[in-house]
Amino acid sequence: MEQYRLADLTAPDVRKLCQRNPLEDESILETCRLVFKDVRSRGDQAVREYTARFDRVELSQFEVTPEEWQSAEQSLDPSVVCSLEKAASNISKFHAEQLGKSEEVQVQEGVLCWRERRPIDPVGLYIPGGNAVLPSSVLMLGIPAKLAGCETVLLCVPPRSDGSVAPEVLVAAAIAGVGRVFKIGGAQAVAAMALGTETVPAVAKILGPGNRWVQTAKLLGMFHGVAIDMVAGPSEVLVVADAAADPRLVASDLIAQAEHGSDSQAILVSTSEATITETLREVERQLADLPRREYAGHALNASYAILTENLDQAFEFSNSYAPEHLILHLSEPRRHLGQIRSAGSVFLGPWSPEVAGDYASGTNHTLPTSGLARSFSGVSVDSFLKKMTVQELSQEGLSGLRPVLETLASVEGLEGHRRAVEMRFEKAGRER
Amino acid sequence: MEQYRLADLTAPDVRKLCQRNPLEDESILETCRLVFKDVRSRGDQAVREYTARFDRVELSQFEVTPEEWQSAEQSLDPSVVCSLEKAASNISKFHAEQLGKSEEVQVQEGVLCWRERRPIDPVGLYIPGGNAVLPSSVLMLGIPAKLAGCETVLLCVPPRSDGSVAPEVLVAAAIAGVGRVFKIGGAQAVAAMALGTETVPAVAKILGPGNRWVQTAKLLGMFHGVAIDMVAGPSEVLVVADAAADPRLVASDLIAQAEHGSDSQAILVSTSEATITETLREVERQLADLPRREYAGHALNASYAILTENLDQAFEFSNSYAPEHLILHLSEPRRHLGQIRSAGSVFLGPWSPEVAGDYASGTNHTLPTSGLARSFSGVSVDSFLKKMTVQELSQEGLSGLRPVLETLASVEGLEGHRRAVEMRFEKAGRER
Repeated sequence: MEQYRLADLTAPDVRKLCQRNPLEDESILETCRLVFKDVRSRGDQAVREYTARFDRVELSQFEVTPEEWQSAEQSLDPSVVCSLEKAASNISKFHAEQLGKSEEVQVQEGVLCWRERRPIDPVGLYIPGGNAVLPSSVLMLGIPAKLAGCETVLLCVPPRSDGSVAPEVLVAAAIAGVGRVFKIGGAQAVAAMALGTETVPAVAKILGPGNRWVQTAKLLGMFHGVAIDMVAGPSEVLVVADAAADPRLVASDLIAQAEHGSDSQAILVSTSEATITETLREVERQLADLPRREYAGHALNASYAILTENLDQAFEFSNSYAPEHLILHLSEPRRHLGQIRSAGSVFLGPWSPEVAGDYASGTNHTLPTSGLARSFSGVSVDSFLKKMTVQELSQEGLSGLRPVLETLASVEGLEGHRRAVEMRFEKAGRER
Repeated sequence: MEQYRLADLTAPDVRKLCQRNPLEDESILETCRLVFKDVRSRGDQAVREYTARFDRVELSQFEVTPEEWQSAEQSLDPSVVCSLEKAASNISKFHAEQLGKSEEVQVQEGVLCWRERRPIDPVGLYIPGGNAVLPSSVLMLGIPAKLAGCETVLLCVPPRSDGSVAPEVLVAAAIAGVGRVFKIGGAQAVAAMALGTETVPAVAKILGPGNRWVQTAKLLGMFHGVAIDMVAGPSEVLVVADAAADPRLVASDLIAQAEHGSDSQAILVSTSEATITETLREVERQLADLPRREYAGHALNASYAILTENLDQAFEFSNSYAPEHLILHLSEPRRHLGQIRSAGSVFLGPWSPEVAGDYASGTNHTLPTSGLARSFSGVSVDSFLKKMTVQELSQEGLSGLRPVLETLASVEGLEGHRRAVEMRFEKAGRER
């Protein structure tokens, strides 16, 4: 890990440290556009060919069969099922609070306005596959979808080389209430859900993590009228630590992040030079026998530690970086919450490791990366709902608005707007 | 207006009637990519050249000066200022309710989770210009931004041919609290706000209506890490009317929509053949002396009326169409609210014309079009906020989650995750 002193850095230096790779890549975009064109014109057949090419599996049928569901459930260790169920219960509990009601507002006499929530339906979830087995991500997407009331929830996951899906993923889908699982991955999965094929229904929104092809395809989906959660990049953590922080724990949090993949970032910001030095030493020590030390080592080499003069500076840097995960190894972490302007999820104090949020504290682990925490929230029940506004005016209500409506219609040169109001009162006059 | 009987239509017919133009257009996309490349490499100079080319105005300086602000205020009729202020007050009142607090959830003993709202900052608003003068859209975007707490709110609007901005737009900006206005339009405005130039700051999110170039540029902005509200297409209304509806009022609502532009859509769905026949006759009558009858006539020619056997069918069609505006000319409109699954904004009964929502009922008129009401909400205070999740665990809390966390970390093959939890208890053991 590179080490810097914030005081020595210029504004462009800081910008550069906060910069992650932008998504725009001409060749990936071209590939994805081709996939969309192909899936649109040839449907399932195109999906089948891309699956053979990219996943090296020949599939006659994409959808997981009742027999596959059943055997998945039977193959799992009961402790795994139980852990998935416990995580699901916590995720449900936290997300259920997000369903709160909208209040009716009487804007003025006779003018009543409010918002009505409706589920987005159908929705499509994407879960990466290949080497990774990610049942936790299935829970994080499936549970808020069902809480929101989405009736049709489908899930695409790349098939393994034998054409199967990891049983943990299927059991998590069953627990979350996701009814249909398709063994399709990559841009072709996104194209299939965005456009619909003979077997895959077109959806109104696509959510979930995935590589650059998947994310670029999600953006392309928007050109076709499909909503997406956000563009997800490599995972990242920023730890703010003071002199009281335990370097062993700080190091363990940096490593837990770094082992996700060699493109992960794990940033340490501290007011204490000793904390930085000891944490970096601990990182080396803990890396030694880590199974995924190759990924983690690579990620940590591309990461860095920054020494700041005080916590204000530390939070200023953190806000510029806008991390996906922000861990506060501080003696009074809650006191500093108000200083955080941009972060996906925040972990307060030494007993709140990121791992808790990854799996089972109840918060969602589908979070904004690459600085998108400046403008995006993580996935929540809101991600699966839309809110329509409703207005109900009485004659008195419209009468009260009338001068404003007619003036503004005139300003905007829309005579038909003015008349639509006026005509209502002509009628009332006639009937009186 | 074409007339159909729903009973005679096949499912593909209905799909076709609900289909609006997709955004993807290779040539527009190519133009926008070029504009982005240019603005990235040459900043203000590129913006200046595009403004000369597309808006036919040579500008040495884009930002509206204090003198221009002042003279705008002085030039307006007091009744216009007063109407803008009244509309602003209603919009504020309705949107302020959306700031509600998130509750802390004790997920299990010692595991406390909640969401913290933070404003998105800076944000960029886009308002169309040219022939249109749209102060109401300035209020609809600026007011929720300020309510959300956004500190830096900029607005881009195309310059008029004399290089000025309509005073109504500037006064509305002042009322809404939008501090900086730039005379830049089209894709170059979006590129400038997405990438930043010497004079235009880069923003975290871009919101607002605009033509296909503006919307395509917004989508491109997402490739560069900038959030957008949604892709806005031509405006549209769907009216559901029963036999009791007044054909004059229904016709006035269809026309008010159609006069927006020749690509607007105004759909009538009714259970009564007489209502349809008389409404279409009224439409002809009211069109005769409408100033914008050319736009409105063109739009209505491309629109249609559908006769259904009952209201269930009418709402089924409306849900498939997913209109931006949905007006219920029904005797008991509120009773049918539960049947609406997708709409941007709903207007209940004859005293709630769309015009009320366009300007001053308080709801937002920046709404999902082209069927996006299936998956998008209109602009609200939420559009300017992100919610970060926070978790605070005690030792007991983490201890309660420990078996779940360790099991799931093992399933996902992430030993570093498992250790980050385990290590916390080793430390506790040592210290006991």
